[in-house]
Amino acid sequence: MITKPLRIGVGGLGRIGRIHFDNLRNHVPGAELVAAADPFEGGRAFAEQFSVATYESFEELIAHPDLDAVAVCSPTDEHANHVIAAARAGKHLFCEKPLDLSVDRVEETLAVVKEADVQLMLGFNRRFDRHFAKLKSLVVSGSVGEPHIIKLTSRDPAPPPLEFIKHSGGLFLDMTIHDFDMARHLAGCDALEVYAQGSNLLDPAIGEAGDIDTAVCVITFENGATAVIDNSRQAVYGYDQRAEVFGTKGMASIGNETPDRHELFTAAGQQGPLLEGFFLERYALAYRAEMQAFVKAVQGGETVPVGGEDGLKALKLGLAALQSVKEHRPVSVG
Amino acid sequence: MITKPLRIGVGGLGRIGRIHFDNLRNHVPGAELVAAADPFEGGRAFAEQFSVATYESFEELIAHPDLDAVAVCSPTDEHANHVIAAARAGKHLFCEKPLDLSVDRVEETLAVVKEADVQLMLGFNRRFDRHFAKLKSLVVSGSVGEPHIIKLTSRDPAPPPLEFIKHSGGLFLDMTIHDFDMARHLAGCDALEVYAQGSNLLDPAIGEAGDIDTAVCVITFENGATAVIDNSRQAVYGYDQRAEVFGTKGMASIGNETPDRHELFTAAGQQGPLLEGFFLERYALAYRAEMQAFVKAVQGGETVPVGGEDGLKALKLGLAALQSVKEHRPVSVG
Amino acid sequence: MITKPLRIGVGGLGRIGRIHFDNLRNHVPGAELVAAADPFEGGRAFAEQFSVATYESFEELIAHPDLDAVAVCSPTDEHANHVIAAARAGKHLFCEKPLDLSVDRVEETLAVVKEADVQLMLGFNRRFDRHFAKLKSLVVSGSVGEPHIIKLTSRDPAPPPLEFIKHSGGLFLDMTIHDFDMARHLAGCDALEVYAQGSNLLDPAIGEAGDIDTAVCVITFENGATAVIDNSRQAVYGYDQRAEVFGTKGMASIGNETPDRHELFTAAGQQGPLLEGFFLERYALAYRAEMQAFVKAVQGGETVPVGGEDGLKALKLGLAALQSVKEHRPVSVG
Amino acid sequence: MITKPLRIGVGGLGRIGRIHFDNLRNHVPGAELVAAADPFEGGRAFAEQFSVATYESFEELIAHPDLDAVAVCSPTDEHANHVIAAARAGKHLFCEKPLDLSVDRVEETLAVVKEADVQLMLGFNRRFDRHFAKLKSLVVSGSVGEPHIIKLTSRDPAPPPLEFIKHSGGLFLDMTIHDFDMARHLAGCDALEVYAQGSNLLDPAIGEAGDIDTAVCVITFENGATAVIDNSRQAVYGYDQRAEVFGTKGMASIGNETPDRHELFTAAGQQGPLLEGFFLERYALAYRAEMQAFVKAVQGGETVPVGGEDGLKALKLGLAALQSVKEHRPVSVG
Repeated sequence: MITKPLRIGVGGLGRIGRIHFDNLRNHVPGAELVAAADPFEGGRAFAEQFSVATYESFEELIAHPDLDAVAVCSPTDEHANHVIAAARAGKHLFCEKPLDLSVDRVEETLAVVKEADVQLMLGFNRRFDRHFAKLKSLVVSGSVGEPHIIKLTSRDPAPPPLEFIKHSGGLFLDMTIHDFDMARHLAGCDALEVYAQGSNLLDPAIGEAGDIDTAVCVITFENGATAVIDNSRQAVYGYDQRAEVFGTKGMASIGNETPDRHELFTAAGQQGPLLEGFFLERYALAYRAEMQAFVKAVQGGETVPVGGEDGLKALKLGLAALQSVKEHRPVSVG
Repeated sequence: MITKPLRIGVGGLGRIGRIHFDNLRNHVPGAELVAAADPFEGGRAFAEQFSVATYESFEELIAHPDLDAVAVCSPTDEHANHVIAAARAGKHLFCEKPLDLSVDRVEETLAVVKEADVQLMLGFNRRFDRHFAKLKSLVVSGSVGEPHIIKLTSRDPAPPPLEFIKHSGGLFLDMTIHDFDMARHLAGCDALEVYAQGSNLLDPAIGEAGDIDTAVCVITFENGATAVIDNSRQAVYGYDQRAEVFGTKGMASIGNETPDRHELFTAAGQQGPLLEGFFLERYALAYRAEMQAFVKAVQGGETVPVGGEDGLKALKLGLAALQSVKEHRPVSVG
Repeated sequence: MITKPLRIGVGGLGRIGRIHFDNLRNHVPGAELVAAADPFEGGRAFAEQFSVATYESFEELIAHPDLDAVAVCSPTDEHANHVIAAARAGKHLFCEKPLDLSVDRVEETLAVVKEADVQLMLGFNRRFDRHFAKLKSLVVSGSVGEPHIIKLTSRDPAPPPLEFIKHSGGLFLDMTIHDFDMARHLAGCDALEVYAQGSNLLDPAIGEAGDIDTAVCVITFENGATAVIDNSRQAVYGYDQRAEVFGTKGMASIGNETPDRHELFTAAGQQGPLLEGFFLERYALAYRAEMQAFVKAVQGGETVPVGGEDGLKALKLGLAALQSVKEHRPVSVG
Repeated sequence: MITKPLRIGVGGLGRIGRIHFDNLRNHVPGAELVAAADPFEGGRAFAEQFSVATYESFEELIAHPDLDAVAVCSPTDEHANHVIAAARAGKHLFCEKPLDLSVDRVEETLAVVKEADVQLMLGFNRRFDRHFAKLKSLVVSGSVGEPHIIKLTSRDPAPPPLEFIKHSGGLFLDMTIHDFDMARHLAGCDALEVYAQGSNLLDPAIGEAGDIDTAVCVITFENGATAVIDNSRQAVYGYDQRAEVFGTKGMASIGNETPDRHELFTAAGQQGPLLEGFFLERYALAYRAEMQAFVKAVQGGETVPVGGEDGLKALKLGLAALQSVKEHRPVSVG
C-alpha cells in the first residue's frame, strides 16, 4: 500500500492521452501527475501549459525520478513495447486497449508484466460507465437471477476514416472488442464459442479495405448464457449504446444518455432529445472513473479491476469472430 | 337484487347515446337492451337496425313493458325532466352529466329521485378509465400516503363550436366539471374553497360569447390537500389528460394514451406517437366500464359508484369557480 | 367482389375459436356468422347461446347453405384436412397457424387451395397488432431507410404444459414461428439462411421432452438485412414482445403494452406497471383486426394479406432452425 | 473587454463557496482564482490546500492586489454588506441569492452597484441547468408558440433544520424564490399578480416556526400566461424538479435527473432509478455553467445573464405570495 500520492506519467498526448492527463491532474484523488511524453511538439506543448515535466520519448518518461505508474496512451502498435519497457522499469501500468492485435505478442507482454510483478490495467472504460456499472450490479445482486440472454447494441454515429480501419484490425477488434469484454463482464464467466455474421452494407470502400460495417455475434458462455451483440458503424441518429440482461428472476436494461430530458409535443407529434455525442462525450465520466479505480487499486495494494487477461480474452473473442465470418460456422474460443 | 337481466332503455341516440346503446347491447353482462327513444328519424333508424323497440318520445320509452332502468342521453336541458319522469315511473337511472346547470333544479331532481327510491348514476366516465382508476387505487391503498397536492391537466385538442359554448355553461361547467369530480374523487373528501383564474387567450370570439379558454383552479379540500387543475380548450398536440397525486409516502402519476408505443430515431432526433384522439377514443373503454358498473350495482342491489350528489358537488365547484373569476378572490364551496 | 355480407362459419370452438366467433359476431363489418362446428358438447353449447347453426362435424359445417367462408380453428393436426375439404367445397379460408408441421403436407394443401381457386389466409395475428403494424408502416414509408438489423424479442410468461410441447413441434415451431413470420414481414423479402442456438436452461423436463426453452436465431435475408430473434419460454415479469428495425436512415422500435400507464415514486424508488397479460390479452385487438382484414379482402376480391405461402416460409425457417441447432451450423432456407 | 484572465476571489467558504471555489479553479476558462476569505479556520484551511491567498475578512479579500471580481458566498445577512463594499472597490460581483430579504435593502444595494458601474450577477443556478436551459430555448425558438400555462414542480427531499427556516424568510423566500425566477424566465416577461396557498401539513414544528411546508402559487404575467408552482418541503422519493410550458403551438416539458437509466422488470413489476440526490448533485453542472457564464460575460464586456433586478423581482414575488397567504386573496406584484 502506497500512502503518499501515486506519482504518475502519461505516455502519449493524443486525444485519449489528454483526457487521462486532465483527469489525473484534476479528478483522481491520490494521483500526482508528474510527467508526460509525446514525440510531437503539439502534444508536449499541451502538457507544458500545466507545469508538468515533459519528454519526447517514452524511455525518458519512465526514467522520470520516483515515478510509480504510467498511463500508456501511445498508438496501438507501441502499446506492447511501452508496457514491456515500463514493466521492466517496475512501473504499474494503465494501458489503453488493445494491448496488441496478436495473441502471441499479448501473451509475451503479460508474461513480462507478471515477472516484473507490477499491475496492469486495461482501459475497458465502459465497465466504469454509470449505466453499465448499474446493470452489472443488478446482475451481481441477483436481481435478474441466473443470466440466460445478454443483449448488447453498440452502433457508432459514423464510420471511422478508412486509414483507421486498415490498421485497426477491423470492426471486431476496434469496436466489438468493447462488447466482447462487456458480454464477459455481464455473464460473469468465460466464453466457449462465438458465431459471427458480418456484412458490408454501408460504404463499399469499407469492404474494399477488407472490413465489415454491420455485424451480429452470438456468444455462448460457460454458464449456459447466450450473448447477442449487434453492431453498425453508422447509426445516423447517434451513438447507440444499450444493454440488457435477461435471467431467471427478471430483466434489467440500460438506455442511452441524452444531453437533456425534454419532451416536445406539437401538432407534428412527440419529439425528444438526440443521443449523447460520441464516445468522448458519452463515456467522459467513465474515463474519469476508470482512472480513479486504477489509482485506488494500485495505492491500496489491491488487484486492478480489469487486468491484462481481460484484454487477452476479448482479443481471442474478436479473432474467433473474424474466423467465424470467414469460415461461416461457430468457432470455439481458445 | 335482480337475478334476471336488467331491462334497459336508452333515451336519446345522439353521439353519446349510441355509444351507450352499443355497449349495452354487446359489452355489459347482465343488461338487456330492450328499447330506445329519439325524436329524430336518424336516431330511431340507428336503433331499428338492431331489432330494438323504438319510440319517438321519452315518455313512451319509460312506458315500455317491464323496463327496469333508463340511460338518459338526451340534450342537457332535458336531463332533469327525463330523470324526474323516469324516477317517478320507478326506473333506475343512468344520466349523462350534467344533471342541470342550476343548483336548485338539481336539488329538486335529486329530491324526486330520493322519494322514488330509485338509483341514479351520473356519467363521470373518467372515474372508470383504467389509468385514473389505477391512480385512485394507489391513493386508496395508501401507496402515496396522505394526499397533499393533486394535479390535473385537462386540455382539449380544439375548441367546441361557439354555439355549444353559448349553452354549455362555459368551460368550468362543460369541461372542468370532469376535473372537479376527479379532484374530489382523488382527494377522497369534499372541497372547501376554490380559487380560479380564467383567460381568453385563443379565439376572441370565445370571449365575446362570454367564455374563457384557458384556466387554472386551486381547490382546498377538507383533509388539507390542495388540487391544481389546468385547462385549455386547444392543445394542438392532442387531447391531454394527465393526473398526479403527491402525498406523505410518495407520488403517483398517470400519462396519456397513445395509439401505439413506437419510438423513431432519425438524424432529426427522437420521435414518438401522437396522443390518442379525443374523448370518444380516449375514454371508449371508460364508457363501457361505467355502464358495466351501473348495471352491476343496480342488479346487485348495491349503491351506484357515482351518485347524484357527486354531480351536485361538481356543479357547485364549477359555479364557485365562475364566481371566483368574476370576483377575483377565493370562494367557499357551499 | 361480394356485395352482400360474407356468410362465415367457425370450425372448432376451443379458446381461439371462441375469440374468432365473438369477433365475427360483433366486430367484423361485412361478416355474417351463420354456423359453427365442434365435436364437443361444450363447444356447441357455447355457440348455441347466440342463435347460430351448430354442427358436430366440420363436414356438416361446410355443407351449411350458402356458406362463403370458414375459419378453421380445429386442433393443429386437423388443419390441413379441414382446409382441403373446405377448399374443395369452394369456401374461402381463414386458418389458424400452422397449417401443418410437414412441408410436404403444407405444399399439398396449398396445391388444393390453388386448384380450388379460393383464398386462404393464415392467422399470423401479430402482423395486425397496432404496434407491429406501426413498425411495419415506418419501414414501408422509408423512415428507417434500408433495413440492416431487425431485432425481435419474444418471451412467454411461463412454459406451456409438457403435453403441448410434445406435439407442438417444439419452440421454433410453436413460438418462434411468429417471429420468423414477423422477421420476413419487416425485412420485406425472403430469408436465405438461419443460424440457431437453443438451450434447455429452465425445467429439465422440457429437455427430456426433446425441446429447448431458450433460443437465439440469426437470419440473413435476400436484401442483406440480418434479423436476430431471442426467445425464452419463461419471462417471470410477463409476456415480453418487442421489436426494432435499424436501417440507413434511422431506427424504429416498439415497446410492450401495459394495463395502464402509471408511475409510482416512493422512498423505495420508481415503479411502473407490469406487462399486459399473455397473448390472448396482448393481441386481443390483433385477433379482431386480422379477421376484419380477412373479411374485407375476400369481400373486396382482393388478395388476403397473409397467404399460405407465408405459412410455408415460416415453417421452413423453423425447420431450418431445428436443423441448425442439431448440426451446429448455419443452414440454408430452402 | 478583459483579455487577460479574470482575477477572482471567493468570499465565504461554506458549502456553496467551496463549490464555486472548485469550479473557478478547475472548470472556468478565463478565470484565475487568486484569493479567498473566510472568518473560520476550517474555511481557510480548505483554501490553503490549493495555494490560494487566504484572508480572514471580506475587506482584506477585496484589497487583494489586482482583483477583478468577487464571488459572494457569505451568509445571507452579509450579502448586501459585501456586495456594497466590493462594488465600491470596483469589483465585479457574483452573489449567491438572495441579495437580501428586504426590498429596501436590495434597492439600496443595487443603487450602489449601479453607481459603481460594476456588474452584479445573482446565483439563480437553475437557469443554467441543461434541462431548464433546453426548455427555455424551446420557448425562445417558438417551438411551443405563445406560452399560456407554465407549470413548475419543485419539491425538496426533506425539510431543512428549523433553525434555517427561522431565518430564511420561509418557504417562499428560501425555496419558491427559484421557481419565481424560473417562471419569469420562462414567461419572458414580468408578473402582474400572485395568488398563493400555503399549508403546514408536515411537521407541526414548521408551523410553530411561522412557516409553511406545502404551497401552490398561481402567477399571472404581462403576456397573459399563467404560471402554477407547487412546492413541498418533503418528497420522500427525492428531489423533484420538473417544468412544463404549454402554448399555442405545443407543449415542452423536462423531467428529473436520475443517477442512471436502468429499468428492472421482475415478477414484482417494473422498477427504475431513484431521483438524483439533492440540489448539490442535481445542479452540480448548473453551478459550473453559471460561473462560466459570469466570467465570460464580464471578460467579454457583456451584460451578465442574471442581474440584480432579477433578484429584486423574485423577492417581490415572494413577498407578495406571503401577503397573499396572509390576506387570502390575489396580490399585485409591485
